[in-house]
Formats: sequence, structure tokens, C-alpha cells
Amino acid sequence: MAKQDRAIRTRKNILEAAAKIFEARGYQAATIAEVLNAAGVTKGALYFHFESKEQLAQGILHEQDQRFVIPERSCKMQELADVVLLHAYRLQSDPMVRAGVRLTMDQYAEGLDRSGPFLRWSVVCRELLETAQGQGELMPQVVPSVTADVVVGTFAGVQSMSQTVSGYQDLQFRTTALLRHLLPSIAVPSVLASLDLSEARGEAVYDEIRRQFQQQPAAAVS
Amino acid sequence: MAKQDRAIRTRKNILEAAAKIFEARGYQAATIAEVLNAAGVTKGALYFHFESKEQLAQGILHEQDQRFVIPERSCKMQELADVVLLHAYRLQSDPMVRAGVRLTMDQYAEGLDRSGPFLRWSVVCRELLETAQGQGELMPQVVPSVTADVVVGTFAGVQSMSQTVSGYQDLQFRTTALLRHLLPSIAVPSVLASLDLSEARGEAVYDEIRRQFQQQPAAAVS
Repeated sequence: MAKQDRAIRTRKNILEAAAKIFEARGYQAATIAEVLNAAGVTKGALYFHFESKEQLAQGILHEQDQRFVIPERSCKMQELADVVLLHAYRLQSDPMVRAGVRLTMDQYAEGLDRSGPFLRWSVVCRELLETAQGQGELMPQVVPSVTADVVVGTFAGVQSMSQTVSGYQDLQFRTTALLRHLLPSIAVPSVLASLDLSEARGEAVYDEIRRQFQQQPAAAVS
Repeated sequence: MAKQDRAIRTRKNILEAAAKIFEARGYQAATIAEVLNAAGVTKGALYFHFESKEQLAQGILHEQDQRFVIPERSCKMQELADVVLLHAYRLQSDPMVRAGVRLTMDQYAEGLDRSGPFLRWSVVCRELLETAQGQGELMPQVVPSVTADVVVGTFAGVQSMSQTVSGYQDLQFRTTALLRHLLPSIAVPSVLASLDLSEARGEAVYDEIRRQFQQQPAAAVS
């Protein structure tokens, strides 16, 4: 294994261990010693990649963002719905995504700038809405920057409620219900009627992405 | 001062001190010793009212719920909007409400059942929606229990995003934007057109409640 590959793999190991520790213990209570222990790497290796607990957390938040490259759709409102539904699916199935979301929602993560994920997601949604607007998919009163923040903030709350009351068991149902409540004030009726907002959609999009990556040699979905 | 009045006042002091400590430190990090210190009461007095840290937190969550008795409206969708807008206003202005919300959203509050506020708020919203449905205010596809959870979960997320990105400075704006996105899929157009969803509404409802209480001797809004 080339030196660079080994470094990439070590970095990945550390982040996965940190994700588990942060998710279980919260940002404030978690320690670098616990991450070292869980990752099974040397102190030197960890500090080579991450200088502090905050950098570890930012690494997870960044990793989480990276995982949401979704297939382009000609209908941008479907693409926006897919972003949300895929995120819901991955929250249930991927510890890195779960750790990222929990860090973002951790009010007591002192010294950690948690606004990044909210703002980055908001930009993703705003750009999709702007393209949708150009294509005539949106109701005339929609202001993409305002609607983008509503989409991001409301999903953050729905996932938090689902985590609290059911441990994410009802997340697909709640996410579909959210979109069915929000989208009628965003998309024009002819677009609305064409959307797939079903509970199975998130997993289907995930499988589609995996298949795409498998067809490209030398690339893999993490 | 009668013995009972003194006990009520002591209990109130303790809860207000606990609200400040929990808000600043988070549930896990907060200690009963810090609450004692902030409240300036004896250990005996505190344990007379609250046997544990969890009981203190539940006391705050309960207190927070009590503060949302809002004026009845003939239009139940306005009453529902008032519940949300008043809550947004009180989040900015009342430390007890802020502490309750932060406890509810504190994922690392181990041993604290945080589902209560979500579920109780959901019941309040569901009952308003059921009455609204009986009065013909709702779109035909609305299922009150599902919509109630969407209202509660989405507001939880919008307030969390506002707290994270602006320290609640933009909460009225975000709350109004939320309602303008949700209500078109809930209320029939003739009801929608009659609603006051403005950013100033929360404070106006609060003042209305204060005036009502002031007209009733021997009662006071906390």
C-alpha cells in the first residue's frame, strides 16, 4: 500500500472512531484519549492529521457534507427532495452522518463553530431553488434564500424530534410528512404532481449512487 | 407572608436558578451544588422541593409548558399561529422558556426523559387542529396528529438554527417564514387570508395576556 493510501486510511480510521465517541459522549465530554483508544493509532498519527478536538469535530462535519453529492435531476425540486430524503436515510444507516448531525445540534459544544453545516446546507438548497426558479418550477412569492433556510431548519428539527421520541425509527415517515407540508407553498402544482416523496425514496437514491460509483473503477462510495 | 406563599416563592427561586445553570452549562455538566449556590437556599429547602437533578429539569420543562396558556380565538388556525409566535417571543425574553427548550434539545442529557415537551406540545397543536377541522378551516387532506408533529418538530429546528446562527436575533423573522411555508398546505385559502402571521404578533399576544391577568386581582403572569 502506497504511503499516501496508508495516510488516507489512517485518517479515515481516526474520523470513524471520533464519530462514534462524539455521538456517544457529546462534544464536551469526549476526549482525544478516548478517540486514540477507539482508533488504535498512535498519538503522533492522530496529531499529524488533527491538531485538536475541534479539528476532529470539524473533520466529521466536513466528511458529512461530502457524502451528499446526489444525482442531478432535470426537475430541481425533485433534486431538493432527494437531498432531504437521502439525508434522512443516511442518518439511520451511517454513523458518520449521525455524528455530524449530533455535533451540529449539540448546544453545549463549547468552542465548536456549529453554524457551518447549517450555512453550507442552506447554500446547497438555495442554489437548487434558484435553478428551479429559473426553470419556472417555483411559486411566484418564493425567495430562494429564505426558503432554503426554512428547509434546512425544519429538517433539523424533524430529525431531532424523531431521534428523541423514536430513536430515528419514524424518520422516513416524518421526513415525507415534512416535505408534503412544505412543498405546496414552494413548487407550482404541475411540478408537485410529478414528485416522488415516498418513504422508500431515500434508500432508492442511495442505491442509485452506489451503482454509479461501482461502474467507475478506482472510485468507491464510503 | 404565609408559610405556603413562602414555599411557593422558594420553589420559584430554585427553578429560576436551575434554569440559568442548565442553560449555561447543559444538563450533564450542571450540578445541584451550583443550583444551591445560585438560588441562595439551603440544601434542605432544595431537597424538600426537588429530590434530584432530573426532578429539577422536569420542573423547568413543566413550568415552561404552563406559560403557554394563550387567548382563545374563534379562528383556531390563528390560535395555533399565536401559540408558535408567542413561544418564539418568549424564547427571546424569558430565561425559563429558553432553559426548557434547551433541555428538550439537549441530546446528551442522560437519564432525562426529553420526549415530554415534544409530546405535550404535539397534543396542544393536535387539539387545535381537530377543532379547526370541525369548523372547516383545514384543507381536506390534513390529518391533525401528523400535522401537529410537523408543526412542533419544524419549530424546534427553526429555533435551534436561529440560536446557532444568530443567538435568537432572527427568530421572529424565521418563525414567520416557517408559518408562511407550512400554513398554505394546512388551512383553506379564505382562512389563510385572514391570519396575522407578522413578526410583531408574538409580542402583541404577550401584552394581551399580561393585560388580562392584570385585570384579575390576586393573579399574576409569571
